[in-house]
Amino acid sequence: MRNLRIGIDAMGGDYAPEAVIKGVVEAVPLLDEGSQVVLFGDKARIEELLRAEGYEGGQIEIVATTEVITMHDHPAKAFQTKADSSIRVGFEHLANGKIDGFASAGSTGAMMAGALFTVGVAKGVIRPAISAAIANVRGGYTLLLDVGLNVDCKPEVLAQYALMGSLYAKKIWGLESPKVGLLNIGEEESKGNAASKAAYQMIAQMEGVNFVGNIEGNDYFTGKADVIVCDGFMGNVLLKMSESLRYIAKARQIDDDFLARLNYEIKGGTPALGVNGVVMVGHGSSTVYALRNMVKETELCIKAGYAEDIRKAFAPEE
Amino acid sequence: MRNLRIGIDAMGGDYAPEAVIKGVVEAVPLLDEGSQVVLFGDKARIEELLRAEGYEGGQIEIVATTEVITMHDHPAKAFQTKADSSIRVGFEHLANGKIDGFASAGSTGAMMAGALFTVGVAKGVIRPAISAAIANVRGGYTLLLDVGLNVDCKPEVLAQYALMGSLYAKKIWGLESPKVGLLNIGEEESKGNAASKAAYQMIAQMEGVNFVGNIEGNDYFTGKADVIVCDGFMGNVLLKMSESLRYIAKARQIDDDFLARLNYEIKGGTPALGVNGVVMVGHGSSTVYALRNMVKETELCIKAGYAEDIRKAFAPEE
Repeated sequence: MRNLRIGIDAMGGDYAPEAVIKGVVEAVPLLDEGSQVVLFGDKARIEELLRAEGYEGGQIEIVATTEVITMHDHPAKAFQTKADSSIRVGFEHLANGKIDGFASAGSTGAMMAGALFTVGVAKGVIRPAISAAIANVRGGYTLLLDVGLNVDCKPEVLAQYALMGSLYAKKIWGLESPKVGLLNIGEEESKGNAASKAAYQMIAQMEGVNFVGNIEGNDYFTGKADVIVCDGFMGNVLLKMSESLRYIAKARQIDDDFLARLNYEIKGGTPALGVNGVVMVGHGSSTVYALRNMVKETELCIKAGYAEDIRKAFAPEE
Repeated sequence: MRNLRIGIDAMGGDYAPEAVIKGVVEAVPLLDEGSQVVLFGDKARIEELLRAEGYEGGQIEIVATTEVITMHDHPAKAFQTKADSSIRVGFEHLANGKIDGFASAGSTGAMMAGALFTVGVAKGVIRPAISAAIANVRGGYTLLLDVGLNVDCKPEVLAQYALMGSLYAKKIWGLESPKVGLLNIGEEESKGNAASKAAYQMIAQMEGVNFVGNIEGNDYFTGKADVIVCDGFMGNVLLKMSESLRYIAKARQIDDDFLARLNYEIKGGTPALGVNGVVMVGHGSSTVYALRNMVKETELCIKAGYAEDIRKAFAPEE
């Protein structure tokens, strides 16, 4: 078995490439022996930054690209027209098996467009999701999905999220039978809006999902479920609200471990689920610490093999 | 002008009637001189409880009723069949002008059914809402609506919530021009789900609403808006999540004023907006402290006259 190859967009994020290079240099000693980081971006600049960091090892490769997709670009259009952009070339490497995962703190839209145009959606998956690990009061994390990709979800899509989230939690967190809940406004199965009521019935009948029923807002932080399913509109609001609590705690000088852990930087990046491959999305304003952790998290995701589990679960005949 | 008459369901809530009577007795000295509490419920039991509390004043009246709508009853059916229930008789008094507002910690569904069957929805209002005051880090409150009545909201309904919330915040909080925001997943007007995108355009064109645009999850607690509009599915999840933070803070021994204020008991009850009259809904598990404050809040709502403002705003020709 050849070594893992972790693809990183050197040009993605508000503080790129400087913060990305610093983060990668910090991450390298933390990776498995032989794991390789493959950077996509401005080669001369990257080499300069690596020199400035005093990096002289052999675990970092550079694939030279000349273009950058910015936050102002139309994601799908930019992916198609900027043929030598770091995101485009990164995804081509992922599709060709030259890297085993690809992560960027750049445009989420361009990352998703790239995934769809290259590795594609896993067969049988209606819509991919972006998930996020939200700290809970038990000291662990709860996987929330979707957090912004699909703002209007059909029940079938929510039901698939239950299975995708479950498979991810199994592999990444080593849970034998992750508890999966549907975010809703009451415990009873008759409660909810049209989508959640229909989704409840579908999830309840799914094999391989340990469905614990509806999860109300008061159990969002309690870890009652390991995976919480909701549409991307709700998930995005909750994700940003959760993150804000960390800043509120800081501003109010509240010293509490749970509130401090409501920090995306700890994981650094969050996976797109339901695409053929490990695709990680980082926060636009990622710091060096966040980018360091994004590299580590990407390695973890590659090793865990959840993407293959999802592929098999949705197209078992292949 | 005759004195205010505050109708209270003595039989509503998990700890009724004991907690209600205690709460009312505690509330009476805090009310305006001459304000009258009118209790609906089991007369003998109420009198017994009033004696036990040592209450001998003249500010509490009792209207005897013999039936109770429970949390297990079908709300609308129970309202119609239990003709001598405390909620039904309370609403009849409200509709006849014998009381100026009616509050209950009993079945929210029965309260809304009662409002619709008696005083009715204000002319021009598509759907009433239940709002809730959520503590913000500025030391004040943000009005969130809807918090559970309408789980699938059309854009027109969300737009009306903007105006109703604004009129309420003006009168209750004395704000000249309350900042109204639409809960959404991005700042730009092009962001959101189908309903929020359409609602944005409608609210932006509304007269009498100081629309500050989209509010993201990270500004849910910051007081960036005085009124936050969302559908009842989102609002219910957020309300319960907010409330849970108070318990999390308590369990983790976090001593913080903002987190402590995420406590429904402080207001005790929350108004239904868009119905013809002051209708207050309390938490099912209301304590004496919560019920005491519900009585006070109902008096405040009656005095503020927001219900009349809403009526006029939606049917200006009358």
